[in-house]
Amino acid sequence: MDKAGKKNLIPKSQDLSAWYNRVVLQAELADYGPVRGTMVYRPYGYAIWEQIQKHLDEEIKKSGAVNAYFPMFIPESLIKKEKEHIEGFAPELAVVTIGGGEKLSERLIVRPTSEMVMYQLYAKWIQSWRDLPLIINQWNNVVRWEKRTYLFLRTLEFLWQEGHGAHATHKESWERVLWGINTYAKTYQNLLAIPGFIGKKSESEKFAGGVATLAYESLIPDGKALQGCTSHDLGQNFSKALNIQFQDKKGETKYVWQNSWGFTTRSIGALVLIHGDDDGLILPPKLAPIQIIIIPIENHPSTQKYLNQLASQLQQYRIKIDDSDVTPGWKFNQWELKGVPLRLEIGKKEVKGKSVTIANRLTRQKQTISLDQLSAFLNRELDTFQNELFARANQFLKSHTSTAATYAEFKTILKENRGFIWAFWCENPNCEAKIKAETKATTRLLPLGASDAPLDASKEKGSPAESAGKCIYCKKPASHRWLFAQSY
Amino acid sequence: MDKAGKKNLIPKSQDLSAWYNRVVLQAELADYGPVRGTMVYRPYGYAIWEQIQKHLDEEIKKSGAVNAYFPMFIPESLIKKEKEHIEGFAPELAVVTIGGGEKLSERLIVRPTSEMVMYQLYAKWIQSWRDLPLIINQWNNVVRWEKRTYLFLRTLEFLWQEGHGAHATHKESWERVLWGINTYAKTYQNLLAIPGFIGKKSESEKFAGGVATLAYESLIPDGKALQGCTSHDLGQNFSKALNIQFQDKKGETKYVWQNSWGFTTRSIGALVLIHGDDDGLILPPKLAPIQIIIIPIENHPSTQKYLNQLASQLQQYRIKIDDSDVTPGWKFNQWELKGVPLRLEIGKKEVKGKSVTIANRLTRQKQTISLDQLSAFLNRELDTFQNELFARANQFLKSHTSTAATYAEFKTILKENRGFIWAFWCENPNCEAKIKAETKATTRLLPLGASDAPLDASKEKGSPAESAGKCIYCKKPASHRWLFAQSY
Repeated sequence: MDKAGKKNLIPKSQDLSAWYNRVVLQAELADYGPVRGTMVYRPYGYAIWEQIQKHLDEEIKKSGAVNAYFPMFIPESLIKKEKEHIEGFAPELAVVTIGGGEKLSERLIVRPTSEMVMYQLYAKWIQSWRDLPLIINQWNNVVRWEKRTYLFLRTLEFLWQEGHGAHATHKESWERVLWGINTYAKTYQNLLAIPGFIGKKSESEKFAGGVATLAYESLIPDGKALQGCTSHDLGQNFSKALNIQFQDKKGETKYVWQNSWGFTTRSIGALVLIHGDDDGLILPPKLAPIQIIIIPIENHPSTQKYLNQLASQLQQYRIKIDDSDVTPGWKFNQWELKGVPLRLEIGKKEVKGKSVTIANRLTRQKQTISLDQLSAFLNRELDTFQNELFARANQFLKSHTSTAATYAEFKTILKENRGFIWAFWCENPNCEAKIKAETKATTRLLPLGASDAPLDASKEKGSPAESAGKCIYCKKPASHRWLFAQSY
Repeated sequence: MDKAGKKNLIPKSQDLSAWYNRVVLQAELADYGPVRGTMVYRPYGYAIWEQIQKHLDEEIKKSGAVNAYFPMFIPESLIKKEKEHIEGFAPELAVVTIGGGEKLSERLIVRPTSEMVMYQLYAKWIQSWRDLPLIINQWNNVVRWEKRTYLFLRTLEFLWQEGHGAHATHKESWERVLWGINTYAKTYQNLLAIPGFIGKKSESEKFAGGVATLAYESLIPDGKALQGCTSHDLGQNFSKALNIQFQDKKGETKYVWQNSWGFTTRSIGALVLIHGDDDGLILPPKLAPIQIIIIPIENHPSTQKYLNQLASQLQQYRIKIDDSDVTPGWKFNQWELKGVPLRLEIGKKEVKGKSVTIANRLTRQKQTISLDQLSAFLNRELDTFQNELFARANQFLKSHTSTAATYAEFKTILKENRGFIWAFWCENPNCEAKIKAETKATTRLLPLGASDAPLDASKEKGSPAESAGKCIYCKKPASHRWLFAQSY
């Protein structure tokens, strides 16, 4: 927003990336840090993260996990103990070589994720079946040295939670993997109003060192897929690398089964991309740091009194009264840009009529409502807003999810409509690599079976997920249709 | 705690450091990280931090500050822009020299504190008086490469909050500095039950790059002082180094006035040291993650039913039912070690008599209370517990705070009683340095004037703070008695 109160945005449909960067900066969600690829989470953006944290932290604790904090420096020799893990992360590491003015005898890795540093302690703490399950979560910062960065979506340092379970059986561990992805899917759908698919990543796309990765994938307006979060089945790979053993009830020594699951601030990027419009952000009411912005049109003593009365009547909502020293028009622009769901305008007319004029950021409709009907109206309006936002995104997802019977059809869809494409794939990594090289589309997910994923969009009636056919690339037999898409 | 349920502690009075390390490890507050000098905040220790966070975060937000998050990597050229700041922190820095497999063109400092990275953005965001005050807080991790480390008290990486205010006037900024130290003092006193003194550090002890540092100092059982937290007046040192200017209402360009204030996980170390005893931790009820531990003595169906009833009756407290598969004696030991304020024992007698037997961790008294009187009893008991814990620590503080008229007296007190010593000092750094070299005692604080520090122990009746005399070392005129002590 410039000093004159103009937004200076770019139409979203004209250049999504340029629109995105400008909205994020001008709505004061974030700014660039002094080191290339780093970002500052500004107060308004961080407040969104705090809403997500509050919700997820409650879910995590309710599920029996506990919070803790592990050091961010991992000795190079430790992180190298799981071969696939270090191979996957090696290109992205930041390395501390000097501490307290002296060259260190061993280089320290700034955590890209905490498996190794946590599990070294798990090996020490876990002795018997009584110590299981051990499920620890942490809220922290991690560093991955990305080449191409975007605010929120991909930065050198980002914030997340990472949960890590150690269990006596694979079955119990797998239940936690599912709990993770289902909890995240519900968070995306119910809180962020972002629909998507749940499923398993292919071997080439799974977590480095894991056995299987489940992900939630949603679709952004240019028809590209965005991986929203992941939940990993680690099998016994790490417990064998770090010797995490327990005595079971029969006195036998066994390796634990492990899982890890993470939800990052990338979700805020998805929120901006999916819901925003040419005037800026549109925030779902359940998540919005400010649900209702109240703007006085004149500066009369009677208005002030009315505002105070209103504020005390609306305590159950997250409200803000903007009585700053700029014009109402400037304020309208600013709070539209910041995506506040409802705007209450209070002028002489409203004071006199004991009413408020309410503008809806999504529908753009204005209505005048009397004070005695206000609470009931706001409850309904905020609920409807949340639901409509989801419905709109879901409509887009559906209209951009196609089925391709042949590779030619697959390529045509990518040219004309993009979005998700259901297509048979033989699960040979060569076909996957060639499809990617030729079309930029990658395998996104193999949908989970019905019983595992209650929220999965692929389960809807008429879904083409479950059947058998021939790989669109090599035409050899394929057991499943996978979801493909180009990645953001 | 070993497998047999024995605590294996060392008497606190015998070897405070050894006792401390063992209690912290065995009560599962913390463990050592894989890199020398780092620590793991285990779930029980982290839960205490979450209680502190919850309280302080509310206070911070109520005061008008907002949360945000800034990157942890600071380019070396940026952190060098304030000369005293970098000189103070240079010996303690961790440096990233490699990123993404390549040697970096500029070395990156892992934040020891965030002044420089935050204020570079402040310079960009602040343009006019309308942008002030800008008061941003962050909860994060910082790194200081300490040589001698202790769990919680001094580690390479630690958790804290750091708040940073930018204001139009020095007066307003100074009010925020006072708000900071007073808020912290109240947190120490009301939540952690730790008494102490508020005051100003000497020039040699103040924050690198600041104008003045206020601190809260408390006393641990060996008579040494522990700096609990600090609040800094930064004057215009940083705004001049980074060119943080604003246009005031008259259109004149001015430098902002700044402050910063931080509260760290060191406070948990103070908590352990000050309140614990030979059986382990003693936690103040307001802070305890578990206020009441409920232990069934037998495993009868009637006991189970009674426990469920009890749990629903005690929902307003933080309770835990320990029905794990070990003996009651083992559990008693464990929860004593973990410092849970009250223990409820439920056996046949209690089930039959509709009562509970309550053991108090502080007084060691046991009482049987009937269910219908339980809530009233628990409220009273927890309140009294909190107050008695503070009173006990305050009694120790008072009995270990002396006044020395001469240097000889000063040295005698250090030998016999240690603790805080009021003594005249001329404020010449040479005298301060010599006293330190000869006695290991350092200046801790110059007490604040009465109007500034409502919670300051030095304000109590008969305090020797306010008068004038001669420096105990050089015998030249001295305006104030300072508080001296040996530092932990």
